[in-house]
Amino acid sequence: MVKITLIPKSEFDRVRGAAIDKYRKLSLLADMNRANALASVKRAGSGHLGSSFSSLDIVTFLYYAEMNTAAVGIRDPDRDVYFSSKGHDVPGFYAVQYGLGNLPKDQLCRLRRLGGTCGHPDVSTPGVEANSGSLGMGVSKAKGMALAKKFAGRKGRIFVMTGDGELQEGQVYEALQSAVHQKVANLNVIVDHNKVQTDKPVAQIIDLGDLEAKFRSFGWHVARCSGHDFRQLEKALAEFRTVSDKPKVLIADTIKGRGVSFMEHPAALKANNGLYRWHSGAPDDESFNAGHAEIVGRLNRQLKELGLAELALEDFPPDDKLPSGVTRQYVADAFGEALVEIGRKRKDLVVIDADLAADCRVRAFELEHPDRFIEDGIAEQDMVSLAGGLALQGFLPVCNSFASFLASRANEQIYNNACENTRIIYACHYSGLIPAGPGQSHQSIRDISLFAALPNFVILQPCNMEETKMVVDYCVNQAKENCVIRLIIGPSPREIVLPAGYRLQEGRGVVLADGDRAVLFAYGPVMMHEALRAGEALGAKGFALKVVNMPWLNRIDAAWLRETVGERKAAYVLEDHAPVGGLGDAMLNCLFANGLADGMHFEKFAVEGFPAWGTPPEVLRFHRLDGPSLAERILAGRGER
Amino acid sequence: MVKITLIPKSEFDRVRGAAIDKYRKLSLLADMNRANALASVKRAGSGHLGSSFSSLDIVTFLYYAEMNTAAVGIRDPDRDVYFSSKGHDVPGFYAVQYGLGNLPKDQLCRLRRLGGTCGHPDVSTPGVEANSGSLGMGVSKAKGMALAKKFAGRKGRIFVMTGDGELQEGQVYEALQSAVHQKVANLNVIVDHNKVQTDKPVAQIIDLGDLEAKFRSFGWHVARCSGHDFRQLEKALAEFRTVSDKPKVLIADTIKGRGVSFMEHPAALKANNGLYRWHSGAPDDESFNAGHAEIVGRLNRQLKELGLAELALEDFPPDDKLPSGVTRQYVADAFGEALVEIGRKRKDLVVIDADLAADCRVRAFELEHPDRFIEDGIAEQDMVSLAGGLALQGFLPVCNSFASFLASRANEQIYNNACENTRIIYACHYSGLIPAGPGQSHQSIRDISLFAALPNFVILQPCNMEETKMVVDYCVNQAKENCVIRLIIGPSPREIVLPAGYRLQEGRGVVLADGDRAVLFAYGPVMMHEALRAGEALGAKGFALKVVNMPWLNRIDAAWLRETVGERKAAYVLEDHAPVGGLGDAMLNCLFANGLADGMHFEKFAVEGFPAWGTPPEVLRFHRLDGPSLAERILAGRGER
Repeated sequence: MVKITLIPKSEFDRVRGAAIDKYRKLSLLADMNRANALASVKRAGSGHLGSSFSSLDIVTFLYYAEMNTAAVGIRDPDRDVYFSSKGHDVPGFYAVQYGLGNLPKDQLCRLRRLGGTCGHPDVSTPGVEANSGSLGMGVSKAKGMALAKKFAGRKGRIFVMTGDGELQEGQVYEALQSAVHQKVANLNVIVDHNKVQTDKPVAQIIDLGDLEAKFRSFGWHVARCSGHDFRQLEKALAEFRTVSDKPKVLIADTIKGRGVSFMEHPAALKANNGLYRWHSGAPDDESFNAGHAEIVGRLNRQLKELGLAELALEDFPPDDKLPSGVTRQYVADAFGEALVEIGRKRKDLVVIDADLAADCRVRAFELEHPDRFIEDGIAEQDMVSLAGGLALQGFLPVCNSFASFLASRANEQIYNNACENTRIIYACHYSGLIPAGPGQSHQSIRDISLFAALPNFVILQPCNMEETKMVVDYCVNQAKENCVIRLIIGPSPREIVLPAGYRLQEGRGVVLADGDRAVLFAYGPVMMHEALRAGEALGAKGFALKVVNMPWLNRIDAAWLRETVGERKAAYVLEDHAPVGGLGDAMLNCLFANGLADGMHFEKFAVEGFPAWGTPPEVLRFHRLDGPSLAERILAGRGER
Repeated sequence: MVKITLIPKSEFDRVRGAAIDKYRKLSLLADMNRANALASVKRAGSGHLGSSFSSLDIVTFLYYAEMNTAAVGIRDPDRDVYFSSKGHDVPGFYAVQYGLGNLPKDQLCRLRRLGGTCGHPDVSTPGVEANSGSLGMGVSKAKGMALAKKFAGRKGRIFVMTGDGELQEGQVYEALQSAVHQKVANLNVIVDHNKVQTDKPVAQIIDLGDLEAKFRSFGWHVARCSGHDFRQLEKALAEFRTVSDKPKVLIADTIKGRGVSFMEHPAALKANNGLYRWHSGAPDDESFNAGHAEIVGRLNRQLKELGLAELALEDFPPDDKLPSGVTRQYVADAFGEALVEIGRKRKDLVVIDADLAADCRVRAFELEHPDRFIEDGIAEQDMVSLAGGLALQGFLPVCNSFASFLASRANEQIYNNACENTRIIYACHYSGLIPAGPGQSHQSIRDISLFAALPNFVILQPCNMEETKMVVDYCVNQAKENCVIRLIIGPSPREIVLPAGYRLQEGRGVVLADGDRAVLFAYGPVMMHEALRAGEALGAKGFALKVVNMPWLNRIDAAWLRETVGERKAAYVLEDHAPVGGLGDAMLNCLFANGLADGMHFEKFAVEGFPAWGTPPEVLRFHRLDGPSLAERILAGRGER
C-alpha cells in the first residue's frame, strides 16, 4: 500500500512565521497546500486535483495575504468572505483551511468520508461560506452576500471564484447583468481561467470568445493577470479596492494541474491524446508518488535555499475504509454501446452532451456519429431547449447530463418541450445516493419526483447492463412518450442476474428471489444489490423475502402487481430516492386503487433528509439502506400493524 | 355591451392584391392585424397588447415579405420558420395568421377560450412552430431547429423573436455562446426592443447596457434598425442572407403599444405615473373603442388616399362565455399587505421580485421598504441564489414569481439553498389551473411535486385573505424550515368563510361544511369554491359531504386526520395540481401509515394530463373539477369499492 504523508499544521506555522520574502513564502504555502490536497485525494480515492491546483495560488493568496480572516477569523460578522462557485477545487481549499488552523486534521484526512469533508463545499465544514458543486450559482450568491453586508451595515468584502467552463452556465450572465444594475460594488469575482473543463479544452467544448470584452460589455470592471503570480494578484486586487462604483472581475490565467509537471495543461493533454486525465479521480500509486515527490522535493529545495529546515512530514492517520463490492459492470457502458448500435439504424437519433461525454459514455457515439452529436457545454437549459427544437423538426434527441443538473436545472425547459408533444429521451446519469463522496450537489435523490407529475413521461431505471440495453431499445424504438433513463454512474456492486428469457414489459418487474413472507421492490444496481443482501440475510433467519427488480418507476401493471404480491401481507419499496415522489408513492397508489392495500403493511425505505456524504458502505449504512439494515427494518415491521 | 368588429380575411386579400406601394401595403396590413388583435383581446377579456403592437410590423413583414411560407405554406418541410420566444405577443401573431388564411376565424375570435387560441403560443394552433410563454428558451430552441434543418438537409431559415426584458434570462446567453461555437449560421434572432417590460422600463428593472456590444462580444453578427420601418427591416434581413458564417441578431427598436397613441411608450408611462398599463389585460370599453377607432380611422384615411374603398368590417361572432363567480377578494392583496406589516417589525425581511411586482403585490413593500426590496428582473435563478446569499448572511428573503417559473426554473438553486439549512420563503404566485387563459406555460400544476421531495420545506396554500395573513405570519415568525406559499393570482370566486376563532395549526385543516357520508379535502380559493359547490349539490341530493380546507400541502397531523375522517368510508382530495406529487399523495401516505386506509375509498380529483386553456368555468368543467362534476364523480365512486 502506498504511503501517504501530511504536512502538519506546525510546519505551516513555521513557514508562515519565517522571515523570508513575502511572495516566496506564499509560493511555499501554496505548494504545501498542493501536497496536502494531493494526499487527501489519494486517500479518498477520488477528488478534483486539476482545478484545486490551478486555483491554489489564488486561494492561498486570498487567505494569507488579502482577506481580513487571517486577523478576525472565519466567523466574524465583518469578515471578508471567499467561496468557490465551481466547488470541485475544494480539496485545495480544505488544505488551505487546515494550514490556517480552521479545519481539524481528521477532517482534512477524511475527504469524502462520513463525518469528514465533502467532495464539494458544504457549509457544515468550517470555513465554507456556501454550498456549491452545481455550477453557475456563485456570482448570484455572492451578490446576495454583498447586498446583505450593505443592508446590515457590515464590513468585509466578497470574493467568489468561478471556473471558466462554468461561464457556459447562463445564470452567470443573469448575475453579471443584475450586479451592475444594482451597483453591487463589493463583489469581486475571480475566474480561475485554466482553459480546460472536464476533459477537453474550453475552446473545444464551447469557446468563451473574448472574455474581457464580454465582461466589459456587461459593465464590469475587468482586470486580467496570471493566477500564479502573487505580485500580479496583489496589484489587481489592490486596484479593485479603488473601484467603488461597480462589481469587479479578475480573469486569472492559470494552468490546470499547476504544480505537478505531468498534470499541467497543455503537456497533460498532449500526453493523453488531447484528453485531460486529472480533472477528477485519484491518481494511481505511481502517479501519486511521483506528483507528491515533485511537490515536496521542490519545497525542500526552496526551504534549503532560504536557509530553512526540510519539511517534517507526518503519516496520514490509518485508513478505516469499509470494504465495498465492486464489479466491472457499468450500466453507463451498456447505455453508450446501445446508443451507438441503435444510432446506426435510427438516423433520426441525435445525442447531446453537456460536457460530460466521458462520464455519460457518449464519446463513442460522438466518434462514430459526429454528424449527429452535439456538444453543448455546461448549459443544461440550452441543451434541453435545443433538443426541443430538434424534436419539433422530427429528430429524436437524447439529452445527457447528471440527473441532478438535468432534471432540476432544466426542469422548466423539459416541461416546455413536453407541452409540445414531441419525443425526447432524457438520460439522467449519476442518479441516486451512490457514489456519495461528491455530496449533495451530485447525489440525485429528487429526480423521479421532478419528472413524475409530467403526464407524458415514462421513467425507467435498469439494474444491469443487459437491462440497460433493453431500456434504451424501448425508449428509442417502442415508447410513445418522453422517456427518462435513470442510470447510476459507478460500477455495479454485484452483477445482477436476470432470469433467462427476461424481456422488458411495460409496468412489470421481474422476480430475482422468491419468498412467501413479504415482497421487496427495488431498482438500479446499487439498491438491487442491497435488496438481495437483505433477502439473503433474512433467508438465513428463516424469513423468505421475495425480491423484485422493478425498472418502471412510474408505470405499474396492476395485474402483475396483484400476482406479484399474492398472499403476502407486507410490501416494501427500496428507493434510490427521497421518500416522496418515487416508486413507493406510485406503488402505494397502485396498491390502493386496485384493492390490494387492505390489511397490507407497506413501507418505503428511502433516503430520508439530505443525503449524507461518504463511501458507499458508510452512507448506505448511515441511511439504513444497506442489506443488513434493511433486513432489520423488515423484521421490525414484519407486516403486522 | 361594447361592439366588437373584425376585419375579415377577404379584406386582407383585397389589400394584399391591391396595386399599391409595397411598404404602404405592409403598413396597412400591420394595422389591420393590430385592429384584429385588439378586438380579440377585448373579447377574451385579457391578453397582451403592448408587445403584440410593438412586434406587429416585424411579424407582418416576415410573413408577407420575407419568409417563404407565403409561397410554400406553413407545413412544408423546407419552409422558413418563425416563432416568438417571448410568446405574449401572440394575439398579434394570431391576427397575422388569420389574415393569411392559416387560422380559422372562429379560432381568432375565441382567444383564451377552450377550443380557441391559447394566451401563449401552443403548437396545436396552426402556424405556431413552438410553445412559449416562459421566457428565454427561444434562441436555444431556434438553434435546435436550425441544426435539424442542417442534419436533414432541409431548406428554410429560422427566425425567432425575443423581448428585451427577456434578455435578463440567463439561458439566452447560453444559447448566444453555443450558437457561435456550433456555427449555427441559419439562425436569425430579432429583438423586439420596445424598452418596457411588465410595467416599467427595462432600464429601471435591470438595464441591458450596450446591447450591440453585448451581442458582438458573444461573436454574433449584429444589426440594428427601427422595427417599424419596413425598408430598414428589409435591408437588415437582406444583409443577414449574406452572412453565412455566424448567427445573426437584429435589434429592432420598437415602441411598446405602437399604433394606438395612448398605449405608446413613452407617452403611456407619463400618463400613468411611470407605470405601463397595456402590457397585459384587456382595455375597458372606452379605451377599446378609442383604440380601435384610431386604428381603423387611420386605415380608412390611408385607403382613401390610395384610392381604395374603406374597410368592410364584420361583427365578431356572439359571445358564449359562461358566467363565473368573482369577488373582489385577492389572496395576493392580503399577502402583500402582510409583508408590509410584518416588514415593519422584522428588519431582516427582504423581498425580492422578478419583474412581477404588481402581480405579486409586492410593490407596496417596495415603496415602504425600498432599502429591503430587490428588483432582480426576469432572472429567477439569479433571484433564488441571491436569496441564498442573503440567507447565509442572516436575512430572511421572500422570493416572488409565478409558481411555474419559480418552482421549476430555479429548482436546482432552491435545492442548493436548502442544503445550506438557511431559511427562505418562496412565494409561488399564479399557482394552479386557474386562470386558464394564458395556457400551459403559466398554469402551474406541478409546483407542489417540485418542492415535495425537499426534506426541509413546508408548503402552504391559503383559501382566503384572512388565512393568507396567518400563513405569511407563520412562515415569517413561526416556521423553522423553508416555506412555500402557494397563491392563486385571480380573484376568489367566492369569499370562503372560516369558522370564528380559526387559527393555523401545523398539519391541521378546518371543516367548512360537515357531512357524514364522505370527506373532501381541498385548498385554495378556486378549489375550495368548487368543493363547497360539490357539497351543496350533493346535499341537495341527500348526500352529506364533509368539506375540509387543508392549507398544509405536505404536513398532515395524523390525529387530526383520524378525527376528521371519523367513520366515513370515503375520502377525496381535490387537487389544484397534477394527480402526482400533490396533497393527495401526502394524504394517502398518511392514511396508510396510520391504519386509516383499510376499507376506505380514496380518490384524487386532479388536473389530469396537460391543463386545458380557456375561461375558468370552461376549463374546470373540461377537467371535471367544477362543483357539479365533482358531485357526480363522488356519487359515482360512493365509497364502495
